[in-house]
Amino acid sequence: MKNNLNFPLRGIIPPLVTPLLDNETLDLDGLERLIEHVISGGVHGVFILGTTGEFASLSHLLKYELIKTTCTLVNKRVPVLVGVSDSAFTESVNLARCAAENGADAVVLTPPYYFASAQPELLEYLNRIMPQIPLPLFIYNMPVHTKVMFAPETVISAAEISGIVGMKDSSGNLTYFNQIRYLMKDKCPDFTFMIGPEELLSEFVLMGGHGGVNGGANLFPGLYVDLYKASLAKDFERISKLRQKVIQISTSLYTIGHYGSSYLKGLKCALSVTGVCNDFMAEPFHRFKKPERSRVKEAIAALELD
Amino acid sequence: MKNNLNFPLRGIIPPLVTPLLDNETLDLDGLERLIEHVISGGVHGVFILGTTGEFASLSHLLKYELIKTTCTLVNKRVPVLVGVSDSAFTESVNLARCAAENGADAVVLTPPYYFASAQPELLEYLNRIMPQIPLPLFIYNMPVHTKVMFAPETVISAAEISGIVGMKDSSGNLTYFNQIRYLMKDKCPDFTFMIGPEELLSEFVLMGGHGGVNGGANLFPGLYVDLYKASLAKDFERISKLRQKVIQISTSLYTIGHYGSSYLKGLKCALSVTGVCNDFMAEPFHRFKKPERSRVKEAIAALELD
Amino acid sequence: MKNNLNFPLRGIIPPLVTPLLDNETLDLDGLERLIEHVISGGVHGVFILGTTGEFASLSHLLKYELIKTTCTLVNKRVPVLVGVSDSAFTESVNLARCAAENGADAVVLTPPYYFASAQPELLEYLNRIMPQIPLPLFIYNMPVHTKVMFAPETVISAAEISGIVGMKDSSGNLTYFNQIRYLMKDKCPDFTFMIGPEELLSEFVLMGGHGGVNGGANLFPGLYVDLYKASLAKDFERISKLRQKVIQISTSLYTIGHYGSSYLKGLKCALSVTGVCNDFMAEPFHRFKKPERSRVKEAIAALELD
Amino acid sequence: MKNNLNFPLRGIIPPLVTPLLDNETLDLDGLERLIEHVISGGVHGVFILGTTGEFASLSHLLKYELIKTTCTLVNKRVPVLVGVSDSAFTESVNLARCAAENGADAVVLTPPYYFASAQPELLEYLNRIMPQIPLPLFIYNMPVHTKVMFAPETVISAAEISGIVGMKDSSGNLTYFNQIRYLMKDKCPDFTFMIGPEELLSEFVLMGGHGGVNGGANLFPGLYVDLYKASLAKDFERISKLRQKVIQISTSLYTIGHYGSSYLKGLKCALSVTGVCNDFMAEPFHRFKKPERSRVKEAIAALELD
Repeated sequence: MKNNLNFPLRGIIPPLVTPLLDNETLDLDGLERLIEHVISGGVHGVFILGTTGEFASLSHLLKYELIKTTCTLVNKRVPVLVGVSDSAFTESVNLARCAAENGADAVVLTPPYYFASAQPELLEYLNRIMPQIPLPLFIYNMPVHTKVMFAPETVISAAEISGIVGMKDSSGNLTYFNQIRYLMKDKCPDFTFMIGPEELLSEFVLMGGHGGVNGGANLFPGLYVDLYKASLAKDFERISKLRQKVIQISTSLYTIGHYGSSYLKGLKCALSVTGVCNDFMAEPFHRFKKPERSRVKEAIAALELD
Repeated sequence: MKNNLNFPLRGIIPPLVTPLLDNETLDLDGLERLIEHVISGGVHGVFILGTTGEFASLSHLLKYELIKTTCTLVNKRVPVLVGVSDSAFTESVNLARCAAENGADAVVLTPPYYFASAQPELLEYLNRIMPQIPLPLFIYNMPVHTKVMFAPETVISAAEISGIVGMKDSSGNLTYFNQIRYLMKDKCPDFTFMIGPEELLSEFVLMGGHGGVNGGANLFPGLYVDLYKASLAKDFERISKLRQKVIQISTSLYTIGHYGSSYLKGLKCALSVTGVCNDFMAEPFHRFKKPERSRVKEAIAALELD
Repeated sequence: MKNNLNFPLRGIIPPLVTPLLDNETLDLDGLERLIEHVISGGVHGVFILGTTGEFASLSHLLKYELIKTTCTLVNKRVPVLVGVSDSAFTESVNLARCAAENGADAVVLTPPYYFASAQPELLEYLNRIMPQIPLPLFIYNMPVHTKVMFAPETVISAAEISGIVGMKDSSGNLTYFNQIRYLMKDKCPDFTFMIGPEELLSEFVLMGGHGGVNGGANLFPGLYVDLYKASLAKDFERISKLRQKVIQISTSLYTIGHYGSSYLKGLKCALSVTGVCNDFMAEPFHRFKKPERSRVKEAIAALELD
Repeated sequence: MKNNLNFPLRGIIPPLVTPLLDNETLDLDGLERLIEHVISGGVHGVFILGTTGEFASLSHLLKYELIKTTCTLVNKRVPVLVGVSDSAFTESVNLARCAAENGADAVVLTPPYYFASAQPELLEYLNRIMPQIPLPLFIYNMPVHTKVMFAPETVISAAEISGIVGMKDSSGNLTYFNQIRYLMKDKCPDFTFMIGPEELLSEFVLMGGHGGVNGGANLFPGLYVDLYKASLAKDFERISKLRQKVIQISTSLYTIGHYGSSYLKGLKCALSVTGVCNDFMAEPFHRFKKPERSRVKEAIAALELD
């Protein structure tokens, strides 16, 4: 397996939202603007078809189109990571092949998420699927949606499977990260650790993590890149100031409305308010209506970002 | 919408396992034997692509093939219900269209199961999808896998949406069923209630439920049909004797191995042991090995069924 | 160990509310009226210091006073069961001794409920505590509050410990009951099974359970006794009519307000509305205010009980 | 309310284990050695009757004796914090009074932990209990045992109740801490934040937390004090080295055995191995047997602490 990534991968890799015109149609202009927006903000890669990209709500055809279009638009300027999670093994393999054919750089995979697997089953699953995956693969720990946490021992074993190059952890549990690192010791020095929750980006990087797959970087890529760099540089004054903004974003933009989907709705609405892309959401979710949209506008104004 | 079902639907409708030769190939002979086996056992319908049918592990192409083949093999002798659950709205609609085109009688739908919906989102989802579903639809309550329970109020509202004709409840919570029935009062007298857990079949029918979608009916269809009939007839001596066998099946066949998947593995292994169909399992699960298979054989022998 | 109970114990044993004037003072008149009310309603015993009795919110001194007063007021007319659950072993033993000294007939014990025990720890706990418990003991399965479910195998083993005579199951899971009964086979024929959730009383008795520890029997003891008797007699017409009332009670009286404590608040309010006892609740909960009390009144009026 | 604490309280405050000879008898010599051990290790206070102190398993009399003895032995050299958590309001008040009478400096309180409270009930509970608590109080967030998480808004409101001076957070969720800090803004600048999980101590202090209530500080107080100081000084080389030891401790000492109680058992066993105090555990738990004890010895030897 060859690829043009250097491991460990480092930096900010936004989990791109999927700009849509309707349930079956990409907002192509929005997608182009979004990609230019994040690349010009200095991100180190993009990740499509993650949770933030509403992957589970998109039809197979739309996923294939999104992979192809994104790879074309990015045009090798930064690495493209493609989510290939599916409850069916074969569909994940098919998505990974599509990603490879279109020149993507890596794929990202959760456990099967309908019928929960036990840890030995999960490890066996990874062992069985990897020979059919033509790109480097990141395991994706997202227990709130998959009901399954990769146990630290499973991660250690997975890291030794050929082709598995890293982990995106969205558990928000830094003790877990610490334990994995301790158990992994000096094995697999190139294994990449990326964190999902942006509120913990700086702590994660200070602890030796390699970067963040942070939803807010769709909106304000430069802010997250700056926080990543400040964390690398251990510039605490700057960390403190930038982290304050990040927490303000998550506290004011992702908590409007009453449901677990508030994060997705708030983020996509903010991207619409700032002119980046359409806020149409794939079923079963729906875009914010006027009152919530007004609150999003106010929250953005209150951020006082440059 | 027209169909040849009478509502409420009544009786035993086995959630068919999906006989497989490998991850992408149906065991066609096994499927035919399975269908003949359950129909000759007196079942009142069949349900494909449910949890027991490993729907979430099958590729889209395989699902389409299974729908077509099953409808052909059943050939209108009993109603065919088709699971159309998918985390993507469009794929559920596509599956339902395929079911209708092949002459199936109804479809069955869980909530989207990756990103959990709140109750108002769930009701809106049903309202949005129903106009695109060309067959009567049963909602499928399966909280252990979907992370979402249909609230009683949501069921009451759903029952008034055109096309929604019933519910399969796999929660195992009879209080929940009692509450829904009480709240529903005299509205929707034709709304069908089917129970998943076979251990509660007789109680459910005694309480006014219409029947069971019980995995064990793949294996011993006559036993479950008899228990259903005894429950309808309030023949307690017979209920007691038959229920004992059902509990013995679930206690001895579904609990081998250590994982949540024991039920699926045990059932498919038993169908192989009894010569009905192949026990190949779709990824990420795998068939029992020899020691577990021996225990399955012993458990079947100990049942002393006629 | 001798006692004047016959096992299996059978019938309706209300988990008495604890009538209070304030956080530290029993409503003695209310307690007397409550006891006379349920005994004249035909109950087969009373159970104090259960979840419905707010045991976890009462001080130790108050618990001792309640045990003594209740035993005196009941005066051997029906068996008195005493909850002795505590997170501390020694306090449970002390409560059991107090119960014995005052002439109570049995005690009831949950697992320790702060730091959850594993099943082997739970069984060892029962083995260690029983030699110090001077009365027959019922294990009390209440997973929603204790975070621990007695595994069926643990129940089977517990049933063979000297002094353990039965189980009160508040899990609401009838499959669980079925499995325990199947696994227990013909061992321990006198082991008593009582069910907590009143919505399942008739099904439980039809399945071979011995009776109910049902909160609503504080309020309408005769209704629950009648339903128990109709279930024993398999009089389905009567079961259907009475169960309807029971479901109406739980649906209309226990669901006012928004919290998990609605059941406790609604029940105690209804006992105040009907003149049985004070509705003061031990901290951290508080009695309903006027609007909720009005709804309780309306719900009682709508019941049209004789 | 007056006291000799300065707020925010800062540093390492070990949650002392409770040295026992049997279920009802303190290991007084062990307690004295433990107190001298941690004070000579430089800790900034001690906390008795926390989760690590097995508070929930101790009888009331033993708790009173422990409070009195500890205050006497500490003799004002460092602040003494006393856990007063109980499922009964009155018992918490009584414990707090005992703490005040014996010269303790503050108390620590979880939510009532049998019947879970909703957030408004929790806030009302704090408002009702504080006028009866004669010492400064820390709220204690321990959702795994209490089933209740203090919502950020509840913490903000609690911080404005007279007498509530800080929070011990054992959720392990640093995003939660970040959100509370953001929402609290400049109000309550003296409100103290202490973290439970020792694996996150340095990150927590780097983020502005005030210190740790870390179980491992019973064993190696100097290590945790040093890590706290290095974190304050932002000495990353030293942080990295010391944190490695802390993770090694939690990974090798707290994970022996199979149950949730492994942490408690491992810690108490290690204190016995190192000659500090008896490893007797209060029911329902029991000390490690020889094989586990050998593993504890090996794990301590492998630490190579000075």
